[in-house]
Amino acid sequence: MGIESYMGMTTGVCYYPEHWEEKDWKPDLLQMLENGIHVVRVAEFAWSFFEPEEGVFTFDFFDRFLEVARETGMKVIFCTPTATPPAWASNQYPEILNANRQGVLYRHGHRRHYNYNSPKYRELTRNIVTRLAEHYAGHPAIIGWQLDNEFNCGTDEFYSQSDSLAFRVYLRKKYGTLEALNKAWGTVFWNQSYTSWEEVFVPRPTVAGYTNPHMELEFIRFISQSTREFAKLQSDILRQYLPKETFITTNGIFGNVDNHAMTEESLDFITYDSYPNFAYDVFSSAPDPKEPEDRKWSRNLAQVRSICPHFGIMEQQSGPCGSVEGYGSPTPNPGQIKLWTLQSVAHGADFVSYFRWKTATIGSEIYWHGILDYDGRENRRLREVRETAAGLQKLRDAAGSTYKASFALLQDYDNLWDNRVDPWMERIDRQSQKAWFQASQKSHIPMDYLYLRENTTLEQLQRYPLLVYPHGAILRESTVRLLEAYVEQGGTLILGCRTGFKDEYGRCLRLPAPGLARGLSGATVEEFTFLRPEDPAPSIRWGEKTLEASVFADLLSPDPEGEVLATFEGGCFYAGTPALVRKQTGRGAVYAYASAFTEESARAFLEALPVESPFAPYLEGEEACELALREKEGKKFLFVLNYSKEPREIFLKQPMEERLEGKLHPEGKEQVEPYGVRVFAL
Amino acid sequence: MGIESYMGMTTGVCYYPEHWEEKDWKPDLLQMLENGIHVVRVAEFAWSFFEPEEGVFTFDFFDRFLEVARETGMKVIFCTPTATPPAWASNQYPEILNANRQGVLYRHGHRRHYNYNSPKYRELTRNIVTRLAEHYAGHPAIIGWQLDNEFNCGTDEFYSQSDSLAFRVYLRKKYGTLEALNKAWGTVFWNQSYTSWEEVFVPRPTVAGYTNPHMELEFIRFISQSTREFAKLQSDILRQYLPKETFITTNGIFGNVDNHAMTEESLDFITYDSYPNFAYDVFSSAPDPKEPEDRKWSRNLAQVRSICPHFGIMEQQSGPCGSVEGYGSPTPNPGQIKLWTLQSVAHGADFVSYFRWKTATIGSEIYWHGILDYDGRENRRLREVRETAAGLQKLRDAAGSTYKASFALLQDYDNLWDNRVDPWMERIDRQSQKAWFQASQKSHIPMDYLYLRENTTLEQLQRYPLLVYPHGAILRESTVRLLEAYVEQGGTLILGCRTGFKDEYGRCLRLPAPGLARGLSGATVEEFTFLRPEDPAPSIRWGEKTLEASVFADLLSPDPEGEVLATFEGGCFYAGTPALVRKQTGRGAVYAYASAFTEESARAFLEALPVESPFAPYLEGEEACELALREKEGKKFLFVLNYSKEPREIFLKQPMEERLEGKLHPEGKEQVEPYGVRVFAL
Amino acid sequence: MGIESYMGMTTGVCYYPEHWEEKDWKPDLLQMLENGIHVVRVAEFAWSFFEPEEGVFTFDFFDRFLEVARETGMKVIFCTPTATPPAWASNQYPEILNANRQGVLYRHGHRRHYNYNSPKYRELTRNIVTRLAEHYAGHPAIIGWQLDNEFNCGTDEFYSQSDSLAFRVYLRKKYGTLEALNKAWGTVFWNQSYTSWEEVFVPRPTVAGYTNPHMELEFIRFISQSTREFAKLQSDILRQYLPKETFITTNGIFGNVDNHAMTEESLDFITYDSYPNFAYDVFSSAPDPKEPEDRKWSRNLAQVRSICPHFGIMEQQSGPCGSVEGYGSPTPNPGQIKLWTLQSVAHGADFVSYFRWKTATIGSEIYWHGILDYDGRENRRLREVRETAAGLQKLRDAAGSTYKASFALLQDYDNLWDNRVDPWMERIDRQSQKAWFQASQKSHIPMDYLYLRENTTLEQLQRYPLLVYPHGAILRESTVRLLEAYVEQGGTLILGCRTGFKDEYGRCLRLPAPGLARGLSGATVEEFTFLRPEDPAPSIRWGEKTLEASVFADLLSPDPEGEVLATFEGGCFYAGTPALVRKQTGRGAVYAYASAFTEESARAFLEALPVESPFAPYLEGEEACELALREKEGKKFLFVLNYSKEPREIFLKQPMEERLEGKLHPEGKEQVEPYGVRVFAL
Repeated sequence: MGIESYMGMTTGVCYYPEHWEEKDWKPDLLQMLENGIHVVRVAEFAWSFFEPEEGVFTFDFFDRFLEVARETGMKVIFCTPTATPPAWASNQYPEILNANRQGVLYRHGHRRHYNYNSPKYRELTRNIVTRLAEHYAGHPAIIGWQLDNEFNCGTDEFYSQSDSLAFRVYLRKKYGTLEALNKAWGTVFWNQSYTSWEEVFVPRPTVAGYTNPHMELEFIRFISQSTREFAKLQSDILRQYLPKETFITTNGIFGNVDNHAMTEESLDFITYDSYPNFAYDVFSSAPDPKEPEDRKWSRNLAQVRSICPHFGIMEQQSGPCGSVEGYGSPTPNPGQIKLWTLQSVAHGADFVSYFRWKTATIGSEIYWHGILDYDGRENRRLREVRETAAGLQKLRDAAGSTYKASFALLQDYDNLWDNRVDPWMERIDRQSQKAWFQASQKSHIPMDYLYLRENTTLEQLQRYPLLVYPHGAILRESTVRLLEAYVEQGGTLILGCRTGFKDEYGRCLRLPAPGLARGLSGATVEEFTFLRPEDPAPSIRWGEKTLEASVFADLLSPDPEGEVLATFEGGCFYAGTPALVRKQTGRGAVYAYASAFTEESARAFLEALPVESPFAPYLEGEEACELALREKEGKKFLFVLNYSKEPREIFLKQPMEERLEGKLHPEGKEQVEPYGVRVFAL
Repeated sequence: MGIESYMGMTTGVCYYPEHWEEKDWKPDLLQMLENGIHVVRVAEFAWSFFEPEEGVFTFDFFDRFLEVARETGMKVIFCTPTATPPAWASNQYPEILNANRQGVLYRHGHRRHYNYNSPKYRELTRNIVTRLAEHYAGHPAIIGWQLDNEFNCGTDEFYSQSDSLAFRVYLRKKYGTLEALNKAWGTVFWNQSYTSWEEVFVPRPTVAGYTNPHMELEFIRFISQSTREFAKLQSDILRQYLPKETFITTNGIFGNVDNHAMTEESLDFITYDSYPNFAYDVFSSAPDPKEPEDRKWSRNLAQVRSICPHFGIMEQQSGPCGSVEGYGSPTPNPGQIKLWTLQSVAHGADFVSYFRWKTATIGSEIYWHGILDYDGRENRRLREVRETAAGLQKLRDAAGSTYKASFALLQDYDNLWDNRVDPWMERIDRQSQKAWFQASQKSHIPMDYLYLRENTTLEQLQRYPLLVYPHGAILRESTVRLLEAYVEQGGTLILGCRTGFKDEYGRCLRLPAPGLARGLSGATVEEFTFLRPEDPAPSIRWGEKTLEASVFADLLSPDPEGEVLATFEGGCFYAGTPALVRKQTGRGAVYAYASAFTEESARAFLEALPVESPFAPYLEGEEACELALREKEGKKFLFVLNYSKEPREIFLKQPMEERLEGKLHPEGKEQVEPYGVRVFAL
Repeated sequence: MGIESYMGMTTGVCYYPEHWEEKDWKPDLLQMLENGIHVVRVAEFAWSFFEPEEGVFTFDFFDRFLEVARETGMKVIFCTPTATPPAWASNQYPEILNANRQGVLYRHGHRRHYNYNSPKYRELTRNIVTRLAEHYAGHPAIIGWQLDNEFNCGTDEFYSQSDSLAFRVYLRKKYGTLEALNKAWGTVFWNQSYTSWEEVFVPRPTVAGYTNPHMELEFIRFISQSTREFAKLQSDILRQYLPKETFITTNGIFGNVDNHAMTEESLDFITYDSYPNFAYDVFSSAPDPKEPEDRKWSRNLAQVRSICPHFGIMEQQSGPCGSVEGYGSPTPNPGQIKLWTLQSVAHGADFVSYFRWKTATIGSEIYWHGILDYDGRENRRLREVRETAAGLQKLRDAAGSTYKASFALLQDYDNLWDNRVDPWMERIDRQSQKAWFQASQKSHIPMDYLYLRENTTLEQLQRYPLLVYPHGAILRESTVRLLEAYVEQGGTLILGCRTGFKDEYGRCLRLPAPGLARGLSGATVEEFTFLRPEDPAPSIRWGEKTLEASVFADLLSPDPEGEVLATFEGGCFYAGTPALVRKQTGRGAVYAYASAFTEESARAFLEALPVESPFAPYLEGEEACELALREKEGKKFLFVLNYSKEPREIFLKQPMEERLEGKLHPEGKEQVEPYGVRVFAL
């Protein structure tokens, strides 16, 4: 079931009943309810509350808490506590600990210091989750469960002995023989061939700090698999006990895990932890003031939406962030809590839970502030939460509505992970991802992310008239077939430089790029080069527009069907070489672009190609405002989000009802106040 | 006894009789005496000279040296040699070694690689110190002893197994039960609760690199305790043997040790190692030329003075500093050795010993230059030392005189140490400390540091009409009582932002800030924020003055007795919120200031509040000159220190005798030459 | 024998027959031959091909390859495969692994993770090299052997247990007694004296990260010795089996090894790996565009030439460089492959082998591109290689000709290695080396490096009218005698600051600098200082010229025979102090210069002193072009290398034959195209 069926547009909060000072939680819960908060998340690090010594279980504390919740009508999201093993476990079973690449174990004293593959940790996990499920499944206050907390946060790499042992099992299953593994990893190079499974470890220290890149890629896949298995181990137990209407989720999203697969296998929906004014180093200089930091979070939210079209926010920033590590951030300006909440909703959230009710006064997160400060007094931020929660209530019919994107960026885990061991691709892709997002934001042509996965269907692609696959270096046969069908049937596809030169193991193809996509693209790559950093970037004239190449250049050779739209210009030796080639196929077309994308070049594509702003009939707005549209059964919800500290102008093309204030706004110009939000319903 | 009774205004030098090439030390000693040097420090790393193998002791070498000293009339400061264990000890007893946080042992080959808590190292120390004391106590040439060398220099963190074992003992003693420890450290957060003492270690590697902040704070207290115990172990032995007139000192001052307590317990007085032109990275760019580096050392000297009003300089820079690690500095300009020496004296030094007689030609400090160069020939620097030593002789009656400060900055170890695990406070406090020091220097309103300790008395506070407690985040009940009494009886107190929000364990209070100081201050903190780094800092209009907020802002809510003197201005959302609130109490007043201090805002306070320049009746001078005044029994010594490479002007308001040159200077304008010094006596 | 006798002006390529996909290598070899490539290097990492398990040897694979080579007429350089131990060895014998200073072992998964001193690794090496020699010696296709691959690349430090054990043996042999060692290392300082050999280790972690500097210097000498022994172990075996006409070489050149001695002992000649457009960090900013990166490689080539006047290039860059570590570079511009090849030849290369035939599609070097791209299609770069190879054929009579330098920079391993532990000297020398090289390049006064070694003769020095010994801090008695003789007989010698203050152990002399060279130089050093980084550098007026001091200043005191040519000027305290002193001795002269050299000051010396441009009679050219001259038996080959992307002008003073194009060029002005090359023969 989707999240909207559970909790359309409710507001929650993360809560710490673990604080022993607060024996009576009722006042807190009542205050929350008065402020529009109807859900609390609890117990995410409470292992020792349940199992103070190995095998000894007690439930009294949370029994009492849940009774109070039931009594007051507060709904509860209950967590499995596996993110923080108890001290007795960390100390007695060092095999449960994770380690860094040098093999130094991460010890008790922080969080997430365990590894997913230790048989002992899996046993401890099975025990605690089973006991909790037995005891709490069906409790009337509990509406759902969170697995663990932030899988792969802090570190997403695992180097314990348990991991090496499990890695071997994983590899045997995947490759069958060492011969196959040696071939897939190209171990013949630099004499790395393995002659016994016992010679294979997770990556360890080397002279240069890294190992064989194909092994590194496989290692990330293994980490993803380990994370998913550990989540599923918990979810499978819970499912045996939970009533059908109780949901399972976890909060993310972090690296080195296939969040899409994990969600499909183990969750009802995913929740996201959103901190749009994330902390910066308090000792270093300021972030770039030209682009508001918080608006960038919309890109993350688009990523989350690619996993679940409607999702939840488990932790929505409600105060300054900071940490013992040296990070800090200002408090949200008045209006920003509401702005960020509606940013989440605009992008598909149907539930928003704030982090956290009250700032911790003890422990490692005392500088990571919640709604209330240490003193617990009602404050400006709580008032803004209350107002925002009330606003969400007026949007209940928006729950389950769908974000309308005009085009999609294609993405896949093959390349996402290979980019971690291919610094050229990382550099190129980072540039292009940012460029397309900024272009989409500023031109008000909204975008989705669409992940290419084994079960991705043509129909999913066809929701978009335009797909941009910026730099799919690894390109599988099945992907090429899917893209061909998409174009054949009328889709427009943009492929950037470096497309298709690698196979699924990260090995380079012995074919001219774009490799398997040669039939798809209208050009092959004759030669390629990093741009000379000491020279100005070559320009690319495309009709009236002049694009600027960035980071990298493919020197394209058009196929007979390829139409050269633009060539490189300027002082580079490849001036005159095709830089943009279009191939018409069936009813669609493929654009092969020979470089990384800049914001300007992405905007040029959006202007030239058949994509439309869904807002055009209703609204215009300054670039500084983000526009978003959610739609359900003909009903439209139009979001205007002003991230800037200045008032910004919008222009209504027809009178529209603003939902949060409940007023009809006339046609014509209006000012949106700094950090202001509008939700027009049609 | 104070230092002045031992050695008023004598000049010394660090000496290396360990160099086997120099069997006959007499020429050196005679040359020193001719140049005005009457004290040598020796034997600080000479363990193997005394105990070439474990348990075998020989005294012959230093017997011979001391005989020469006695013969020539040279006085000797003798050192215990525990800063560098012998190779046989480092190798045979790895448990004596210190380690980094990753657990990697520091090995033989440098210095200070031992830990304070190894029972074996304490045993070896007891043995060597006892034997040295037995043998050398009462030697006529020896006037005092230095314990070890630079406790906590190089590293002030200790992570050996011996430290973990001792940490447990320390914690058991302090907390009694694990329950109490768990509560004090808030281990309930992130499930860190300990269930057995064996689970407790000194901080070890974690995913983020740090552990529970309350544990980290306690760990620093433990390091301080360990350092003090190790010093006292030595001092207690020496006291049993030394004649009453032989003093005990050590040279510092370094981090993670309560130097005040260590001095009270184990020393007659402290000595400081002063390197005003400390080395910089030879491969990186230049230091900021606007503020002379050496003048900043006056802040350090004020810190030393807070420990002992009159102290010694054990190592005064006399040549370029440099190191195998990549540091370097220019040689002192002509005049700077004298300038730096008088800087030390102006701030309270009654004894100055140069580091070192001759630059080492072997080993790890060959780039850390002394007076003489490798060749040992008389040189410009020795001539300047001679001239300076002669000058000091003319100031003998200044020995024991007291530095006159117009106000004091309050400081305490609770906050000093907690700032190491609270990066927000470190950032804020670093800014404010620098600001007050610069303001004091440039406005010629001299300052003291005053440490708030268990035994600090009201009388000590009352020496100052103005106290500035910039950011006392941790505020103990006893401190609040003391400050209340101070204000009640006429004192003026300034409290900056973030005052009083923590308890002694570094936990945040569940009270509005300033917590326990709510009665003292005229305002509470409604809300707080880091300043937005992308916006200009808010300004604060205070009457005619405009201050600039810095780093952080408390949003103040005045109490009924609080008088709002100034509010935030500018584009921030809290414009109009009180930023400076005065509360009159008894005969005094408290100023609550809502931000960190800048040099300009500190100067504004100094102008507005009842503090006076002690120099006003006698002298005026350009900002580039530091002025200082020492006083004893009605006698005044007025120091003028020109740190700049340009001549600077001063204005004498009456004729005064200049002591170094022995001339009467007339009333009126005069030029102080580059790096020039004046000591006027009245 | 010299390289010219083996392979005058042939072209080769590095090849990977190890790729199992290519069972039939014939097409590749034929294509190479068609493109002018007559030599392939193979098998440099192929251990597992020969010894898939310990003690089991198979030769079938390379037997087949060599048969194809023989058949096609391709010549082969065969490698010993010891740079990459097999997985079975790395896993079963951890004692063969190298480690970092913290003692963390470098594991299988990259390359060069072994140490030179493990008895087991030496045994494995002896076995594999013996078997290869037995089997392949005398194969008609094999013309030479490469030992290992890039000794000391990646890391040139070794910290394994095997190294500590061997270090003790080395030290016992060198010093005889611990007393001698303690004295040589000055261990009396900081109580580091060793009392048992078991206490001595290779440098290990200390509080500061470094140990005794004399030990560090000795440790580097030990590494050099270990490297040489390991090379000789292989070479000695090969010599027993190889026909006399088969050569032995290795490819370098890397740090911490005496390449001159290694070459003399174990090689027929050295080969160099030349990557003039070396990769830069793809995430950071651009290299300095003012000085072309590739031209700097001429300095490296001069270093190689000091080892062998005629040498080979084993790996000549032929594509973009990049790495998993985050490096990248643009592809060579059209013309640059040819330019870089001729740069190598101009400096003394008689053989150029490109790296590599085809870019690897698997493993750790997939971003380190060869001539052909992944797809293996003929491309622009191969066409340029073909053209270049054809050009080299026209220069066959230049093989064995000698580079003509007008002066030499003196260098020696004592100082090269001590600079690694003397950051002052490293900073000073880095500045001066660059300065002299740039001055030589831009003024068209070509330079050699000349290493001062035990067997260096007066005759070798006398090849140059001018020798520059920029900063010989360590100066041996024998060196001083040699330099004295050189000057006596008419040579001109320049000595920069810091000359002669250290002995061979890196200890500072107890003499005024320049120590043992006091008789040689016309001045002694009274005092010295780093330049104050906050002040402008002092200037030095020398007749009409004004030099600029840099980094450091010696304050010179002229001897009676010393003639002061210039003094410091400006705001420094030593203004007026001699900065340049000339002493006439016999028929020659010594110039003592009191600072590090800048490009401008080096040019001033070149203008003032009796050195001549060897090009003057024939040619003039813009600074942007490098000029070089090789000569043999009266035949002259004059190289013009235009590194810039602009056309540059040269002026022929007589008509000359251009060899590459085979045309006569008239007297007068001509333009050299961007990246263009000329080789005029006379």
